[in-house]
Amino acid sequence: MRAAVMRDWQLRVDDLPDPTPGPGQVLTKVLACGICGSDLHMLQHGKEVREFTRAMQGDTPPDPMAPKSFEPEFDTVMGHEFCCEVVELGPGVENLKVGDVVVSLPVAFDAEGIHAVGYSNRYNGGYAELMVLNEMTGIKVPSGLPAELAALTEPLAVGVHAVAKSRIVAGESAIVIGAGPVGLACIAELRMKGVGPIVVADYSAKRRELAALLGADEVVDPAVEPVIEAWKRVAGGKQLVIFEAVGVPGLIDQAMRMAPRHARILVVGACMQHDSFMPMLGITKELNIQFALAYEPQEFSGALEAIADGKVDLQPWLTGTVPVDGVPQAFTDLANPEAHAKILVVPGGSIVA
Amino acid sequence: MRAAVMRDWQLRVDDLPDPTPGPGQVLTKVLACGICGSDLHMLQHGKEVREFTRAMQGDTPPDPMAPKSFEPEFDTVMGHEFCCEVVELGPGVENLKVGDVVVSLPVAFDAEGIHAVGYSNRYNGGYAELMVLNEMTGIKVPSGLPAELAALTEPLAVGVHAVAKSRIVAGESAIVIGAGPVGLACIAELRMKGVGPIVVADYSAKRRELAALLGADEVVDPAVEPVIEAWKRVAGGKQLVIFEAVGVPGLIDQAMRMAPRHARILVVGACMQHDSFMPMLGITKELNIQFALAYEPQEFSGALEAIADGKVDLQPWLTGTVPVDGVPQAFTDLANPEAHAKILVVPGGSIVA
Repeated sequence: MRAAVMRDWQLRVDDLPDPTPGPGQVLTKVLACGICGSDLHMLQHGKEVREFTRAMQGDTPPDPMAPKSFEPEFDTVMGHEFCCEVVELGPGVENLKVGDVVVSLPVAFDAEGIHAVGYSNRYNGGYAELMVLNEMTGIKVPSGLPAELAALTEPLAVGVHAVAKSRIVAGESAIVIGAGPVGLACIAELRMKGVGPIVVADYSAKRRELAALLGADEVVDPAVEPVIEAWKRVAGGKQLVIFEAVGVPGLIDQAMRMAPRHARILVVGACMQHDSFMPMLGITKELNIQFALAYEPQEFSGALEAIADGKVDLQPWLTGTVPVDGVPQAFTDLANPEAHAKILVVPGGSIVA
Repeated sequence: MRAAVMRDWQLRVDDLPDPTPGPGQVLTKVLACGICGSDLHMLQHGKEVREFTRAMQGDTPPDPMAPKSFEPEFDTVMGHEFCCEVVELGPGVENLKVGDVVVSLPVAFDAEGIHAVGYSNRYNGGYAELMVLNEMTGIKVPSGLPAELAALTEPLAVGVHAVAKSRIVAGESAIVIGAGPVGLACIAELRMKGVGPIVVADYSAKRRELAALLGADEVVDPAVEPVIEAWKRVAGGKQLVIFEAVGVPGLIDQAMRMAPRHARILVVGACMQHDSFMPMLGITKELNIQFALAYEPQEFSGALEAIADGKVDLQPWLTGTVPVDGVPQAFTDLANPEAHAKILVVPGGSIVA
């Protein structure tokens, strides 16, 4: 099969042997797989990320339930936002049949343990023509839902989880800092929850346009107006949650400075460096900072339902598709926020224009 | 009257004119007033604190409800943990009478606005023989409750508030980092709430002894055993809230490193400097950091009730008393955690041994 392979922190397209499903697993054909910013980050900064992870683990014993990760000297095929069609059943599979279209949490189980699909030497992700999934994690996509929209289940689930962790409720207001994929997912979920106004800051005009299409009430270019001033204009003193969806040093400090008393800050942007802040700012305003990671299984299936039921229209989020051979170029193109938000890898040929 | 006066960041004992109660106010005789660590900090670092406060306010418009603070070139008499006896009524006072023993939130109101009693040029605090209070903030001390215990209402209220902000409930467990007055107040309130085990870390043997007397289940010298290891020994995997009650740089990072997944961190130690941390630690463990300041009026009156009803025995907390003339020496003595926890200023002469 064709696959975009990461080896020694380089991405190249190659022919790999087709994977084989084990007991309780199915072989699937990838219909669509979103390219995630985390994968761009992994390719560029993977070495530092791994050193950082090891340094952090120095203080904490390893979690036996944490998925095994990859070794960089062996092949890894990334891609964890996939929608697939079952083409072959492994031994003992009962609830899936050939032709079923599924999405799945990006994890695989076997006798060796739990593997992070898309960050594993053993289980390739969706930047390939074929992949193996466990029957037990597969969720059937309601018929009629295009695969390219179903593939947005995973990134939407990140927003669903972040919003849930923030404990925000209808009647409260939100600021979202950064309208990249994570910020956009938060905006979509906030809109579904009836939170408003949703005020969004991003330096990119294209991202601000997408934010508005996904449900932002007010979008600002922080170079023109501080987002907190825009919020004051439109929120009328409502309780505020600030979503930090950028993940670079200094952003949490910025959020703490702009926050009114008793505001909550939800950190979903993954800042990998050391960061600095002023605890006294948090104390005098009695702020709350909640960090969020990934999603729960029921949030994942809830995200699929929301897309299938038309509760959220994620079409504007999709800005391009590429075949497997186009993955390296797509990684380059995604660096420009004016050009793209979400590019889908569609091994079978473009579905969306 | 005799008073311990702060002027130009120096503490000296002097004779001041007796204060006069205005409309709705009473003149009181100070029975007992606790010396607070914030006052030691204000005397030593007041200049930096004020510069810091101004720098922070640069981003936020001033709060019209915030009490006015003092100008350092004029006299300030500190002391905001007081129990007093009414000796004279101002015009229009209806609900207090001469001889009533009261505690009060450390704020005073008049035509000029709200003043921070103990940090005000206009209203002296309890390091003096006399002070003026507003009738509306005065709470009568139940008869039979010694003034020196009633004077602990304010510091206990800080713990009551911190514990409330942490949303901890019976059945969860706590680590308290630092057994100074704020940490001890948290321990007392956690014990009243039925939280356990309460595991406390302090380098001082005397402070650990006090922590145990106030309700800690396990006390550790962090030089001997990391507090998280002690917690693992005794807590059996219960949900954990870590109370950071020290307030120096690096402590929040320490709390984040030791925290298990989904733990909450309550920051009540007032760190006045810049601090650094690793957001990725917060993200991978989905931590929550809640900052807490002061208390609500009902938490203040609740603290008095808890003391009066004998729900908490704060007697061990009291390690000494001094007359007004002894305040400067007491400030020096409090620097040694082996010698003292709470020293009360008792202008009328020692009550406790």
